[in-house]
Amino acid sequence: MIKQQHSAGGRGWTAGIDVGGTKTLLCLTGPDGGIISKRKLDTLLGGEPGGFMSWLFAQLAQLCRDHGTELAGLAGVGIGLPGVVDESSGILSCAPALGWPEEDIRPWIRREYEGIVVLDNDVNMAALGEQAAGAAAGREHFAMLTVGTGIGGALYLNGQLYRGAAFAAGEFGYLLLEPDDLPSGEPGAAAQQFGALESKASGTGIALEAARCQADGPLCAVLSGLAAGGPVTAQHVFAAAAQGSGLCARVLDRAFVLMAMAVANLAVTLNPQLVVLGGGVVDKNAEYAAELARRVRALSPVAVDIRRAELGNEAGAVGAAAAARRALFISFF
Amino acid sequence: MIKQQHSAGGRGWTAGIDVGGTKTLLCLTGPDGGIISKRKLDTLLGGEPGGFMSWLFAQLAQLCRDHGTELAGLAGVGIGLPGVVDESSGILSCAPALGWPEEDIRPWIRREYEGIVVLDNDVNMAALGEQAAGAAAGREHFAMLTVGTGIGGALYLNGQLYRGAAFAAGEFGYLLLEPDDLPSGEPGAAAQQFGALESKASGTGIALEAARCQADGPLCAVLSGLAAGGPVTAQHVFAAAAQGSGLCARVLDRAFVLMAMAVANLAVTLNPQLVVLGGGVVDKNAEYAAELARRVRALSPVAVDIRRAELGNEAGAVGAAAAARRALFISFF
Repeated sequence: MIKQQHSAGGRGWTAGIDVGGTKTLLCLTGPDGGIISKRKLDTLLGGEPGGFMSWLFAQLAQLCRDHGTELAGLAGVGIGLPGVVDESSGILSCAPALGWPEEDIRPWIRREYEGIVVLDNDVNMAALGEQAAGAAAGREHFAMLTVGTGIGGALYLNGQLYRGAAFAAGEFGYLLLEPDDLPSGEPGAAAQQFGALESKASGTGIALEAARCQADGPLCAVLSGLAAGGPVTAQHVFAAAAQGSGLCARVLDRAFVLMAMAVANLAVTLNPQLVVLGGGVVDKNAEYAAELARRVRALSPVAVDIRRAELGNEAGAVGAAAAARRALFISFF
Repeated sequence: MIKQQHSAGGRGWTAGIDVGGTKTLLCLTGPDGGIISKRKLDTLLGGEPGGFMSWLFAQLAQLCRDHGTELAGLAGVGIGLPGVVDESSGILSCAPALGWPEEDIRPWIRREYEGIVVLDNDVNMAALGEQAAGAAAGREHFAMLTVGTGIGGALYLNGQLYRGAAFAAGEFGYLLLEPDDLPSGEPGAAAQQFGALESKASGTGIALEAARCQADGPLCAVLSGLAAGGPVTAQHVFAAAAQGSGLCARVLDRAFVLMAMAVANLAVTLNPQLVVLGGGVVDKNAEYAAELARRVRALSPVAVDIRRAELGNEAGAVGAAAAARRALFISFF
């Protein structure tokens, strides 16, 4: 029976969709998780969830037809969204990139597709992708930590995603690692701020910190030259440090110290087998993961493997398809 | 059938045992978890696991007979041990309080008792106890944090204990919360040290920090009077602060700042519903939990309830009995 459902002609295929603030990636996978096809689109922005889902499933139906099957023949669809997704209520919140009202989005999906649908946030789906076919393949316990514009992450514990009591697990950008990180305001003020760790160690934080040092002290000629009058970016800081800028080396050293403390703290808190590093800052700097791993080894009494994510921008869609496959097995047995 | 097994005459009873470095607590519970009887003993020290288990189960058999049943009539036995317990191999390690060789202790237990046995470390069992009948009753996601001689803890996530990849989850004493916490030695050196957080915020840490301030600066007359020539303890520091010692107030403020950072970091990492505080420093200072909760509220963007543990020294035995009851249900269904 199961074998039959998983046989040829599109049967047993699942789709994974990663909806981003600018691009949306669709991916068709076979019963074993192998990618059959993928397609990248500009995300339809500025509308309501109803119109968006009509557009999204029309695109997915076209992709299915292009590969000799149809939408209704898919065994399931996973969708990663850039916001907080409450699986049990279907409510998507904190999704400024889409600008939708905070509501149950499942009815809009159900109008377009009647099979198994799994919703989750994009970082959780990326972690599932790395677990299915990337740096965390086959692992039961790992953390994913993304260093880009901000710092975020996901937890995969005991063989499943761990979302916390209110979907706020893995908000690593808010880690406090020095007493001067303490917000001075009223209760609740902390929630509005860029997190303490990400304000110093994200791509944004590294760029701002270097710009601040430039403003406070003597200009670093290397960094100024690279920025060429425009705003300083994290990549300028990495490049300037590689070219001998002491200022940029100090800014990066500070960011690495804080990230190493954060990862060492994850190791003694959760004892994961692995920490997978993703995000633009990690992707663009080949030595980032190795440098962080070296520093963590010197700090942590609990051993933890540290690896760069392997699936890049495809992790979310691959993970969303994997999530749909998992749901399929749960409904079979 | 299940009902029958759970009926009167000792049927469906489980035993929970908390083996400590000085005291061992035995506890008999009914099918609903209610405590039928408990007995506290001096732990038999200085022997081998074989002799210890003979002694332990003889004591348990006596407790059973005193309540009209027998050891073989118990539905299961849970044992919390002061060390790292690998459930799958039965190997007990890192248990200096007992001084046993690192070996599989299950055969020694099996000689004495043939029913269901569940082994775990004492802090995990205490967390299960608080979940079964204490401060975390009915919660699915919480952390337990114990502040005593050292700082330790346990995690209960998605309705089950979370132990990590190598049973090192919840080692909160090692959290790094200031860059000057960084160990300066070689890789691995960190493992040998008293943890960074516990060296400043445990009972030991608080006492040492106050003694150091006394040695470095002008003597605090209040603290000196309380210590009366003997070693300073954490309780002296709390008492002196209450009596107006500025030195002791500063030492405690520092400890609370670090603990609040640690709990706020747990909140953004795991988003637990609750953090349960236990251990001697929390037990002996009625205001500790409320003071820490106030500070965490000001720091954390993610809400987390903070409560004092309710079962005190009985948590481990109550939790061990609960662990045996859980194993029973797994084997029934």
